Amino acid sequence: MTQNATEKRVLAAIAQRRELVNDAIDVDLPQQEPERLYEASRYILEAGGKRLRPTAALLVGEALADVDGEADYRAFPTVTGGEVDLMAAAVSIEVIQSFTLIHDDIMDDDDLRRGVKAVHNQYDTSTAILAGDTLYSKAFEIMADVGGDPANTLEAMRLLSSTCTKICEGQSLDVAFESRDDLAPEEYLEMVERKTAVLYGAAAAIPAVLLDADEAVVDAMYSYGVESGKAFQIQDDVLDLTVPSEELGKQRGSDLVENKETLITLHARQQGVDVDGLLDGSTVETVTEAEIDDAVAELEAAGSIDYAREMAEELTERSKQRLEALPDNEASDLLADLADYLISRGY
Amino acid sequence: MTQNATEKRVLAAIAQRRELVNDAIDVDLPQQEPERLYEASRYILEAGGKRLRPTAALLVGEALADVDGEADYRAFPTVTGGEVDLMAAAVSIEVIQSFTLIHDDIMDDDDLRRGVKAVHNQYDTSTAILAGDTLYSKAFEIMADVGGDPANTLEAMRLLSSTCTKICEGQSLDVAFESRDDLAPEEYLEMVERKTAVLYGAAAAIPAVLLDADEAVVDAMYSYGVESGKAFQIQDDVLDLTVPSEELGKQRGSDLVENKETLITLHARQQGVDVDGLLDGSTVETVTEAEIDDAVAELEAAGSIDYAREMAEELTERSKQRLEALPDNEASDLLADLADYLISRGY
Repeated sequence: MTQNATEKRVLAAIAQRRELVNDAIDVDLPQQEPERLYEASRYILEAGGKRLRPTAALLVGEALADVDGEADYRAFPTVTGGEVDLMAAAVSIEVIQSFTLIHDDIMDDDDLRRGVKAVHNQYDTSTAILAGDTLYSKAFEIMADVGGDPANTLEAMRLLSSTCTKICEGQSLDVAFESRDDLAPEEYLEMVERKTAVLYGAAAAIPAVLLDADEAVVDAMYSYGVESGKAFQIQDDVLDLTVPSEELGKQRGSDLVENKETLITLHARQQGVDVDGLLDGSTVETVTEAEIDDAVAELEAAGSIDYAREMAEELTERSKQRLEALPDNEASDLLADLADYLISRGY
Repeated sequence: MTQNATEKRVLAAIAQRRELVNDAIDVDLPQQEPERLYEASRYILEAGGKRLRPTAALLVGEALADVDGEADYRAFPTVTGGEVDLMAAAVSIEVIQSFTLIHDDIMDDDDLRRGVKAVHNQYDTSTAILAGDTLYSKAFEIMADVGGDPANTLEAMRLLSSTCTKICEGQSLDVAFESRDDLAPEEYLEMVERKTAVLYGAAAAIPAVLLDADEAVVDAMYSYGVESGKAFQIQDDVLDLTVPSEELGKQRGSDLVENKETLITLHARQQGVDVDGLLDGSTVETVTEAEIDDAVAELEAAGSIDYAREMAEELTERSKQRLEALPDNEASDLLADLADYLISRGY
């Protein structure tokens, strides 16, 4: 298939599963009393989102069970003849993601999320803290009820909880790094892995755990998720500099204007580039395309953009190799496409 | 035994287990990287606390296994011949308690906790949010590793997560009630049950789950915890009005001065007492003992203090009857003493 046809196919696969995930969220996390608490808890989930992590989770299940999209996600066949609620596991992952967004937005003082006000902005900080906390425990409640072998469910919950710990550690490192001026690219990558990539890892590994797959398959799926999740974050930094503003939906180079440290700036510093001087004094409102072009040219000359782009591509390739642990079918093909898709656009 | 001897015995039992729990916290939740995150997460745990919930958990285990304090809490005998890490379960409960304190202090804007600064005050709000989140997932990680029958561990984690959801709901109700002037005592009791009592319930029930006790025993232990936890909260409101300031360690009647709604004020309102007029215009700094005496006399005349006191005593009696589900031994006696102790002093 051409790149375009591949992208079309993966977008259709995501859209199809997104609808089902959205319906399932309403079932597994219904609006209930106390009204305001659950409204606030569901607010960001209702505001949209691509459901990439749940989609990855469903696809891993489909690939392992070799069902090609025909099975009932709520009574999904394990590889050893049992049955689990794969959809609930996918919802649980998305609920965790949503909890981290709500708390991160408070910490980072971000006003907007998915085109709507952040929860602490729409409601208040106390409600946002509590909404996040509620999603946290709800995610564990939902995961606890997937059925199947209790040992597998327990292992899934162990993985979910250790993943949440790593996310907190990653967020803590991210905050700490803001005051560091001697950050190595390796430290940045470690932060990205914990803050975002591990949840992709859990999304891909947990279905393998629940479907009673071999440990080697579980490990391969975890690596697939972590590597493609890391590639996605790194590519995001590349796209911020290389995609025209109108396509990005925000000012190109805004990370650079806002002095946000990325893998690209860290590499450039190591190459002796005066990163802080690149767009000194500019703001997102005042910066010109020409100024950004000059800054990007300097980063390109230092090899920093290629460095990041190549790392994202390399990680994506590696993640796709992990899929060899799966049966060769439509779902495993889609997982490869999904990995490619993650670095093709800036989501 | 006299009341004094009973209290001495239960205090010794608590003190003895507190030391062991404190040691176990250092093992199960060690200081690690990122340093500041784990420092902040451990800060309130290190500041003290009676460890009443872990003590209740250990005592339920001891009563069920009939060991009279001789068994290894880390390799504790189940009633069906297995082994679990009962101490880890006790630590997990305390870690959850600590997470709720950290987040509640942010929401309630409380500056002090256990005689030290609240975490958001000692560090900052972002760190406090993240420290609470870290404790949340760590508690689940710790519980996941107690060993024994995976089905029991899964059930313990299910109970822990549904308990956390109820705590969030209770906190949400507590905040919502601040703007209500038509609150019924039943609604207040429902809030108290969710906000605080359910964690006592989980502390008592989870050991029964892990030790493979019958469902009837699990249910009885849950009720024991919830009822004695509720009694404790209600009695706390009574003590605020009836215990001299020097014994309380804070101004007697401070809840009333600060217009905090309690079971007592809600009952008094129903009896037609002008609660808002009782100490109108006073502050904790300016209020006199005579003014408080007058206010208390009005509440007493309305029968409101007796109403709360009798409810606390009744709940305590009921909670002690639940202990009939346990073998008759020193540990089950101590659980009865613990229930009495909870309403004897103002912790």
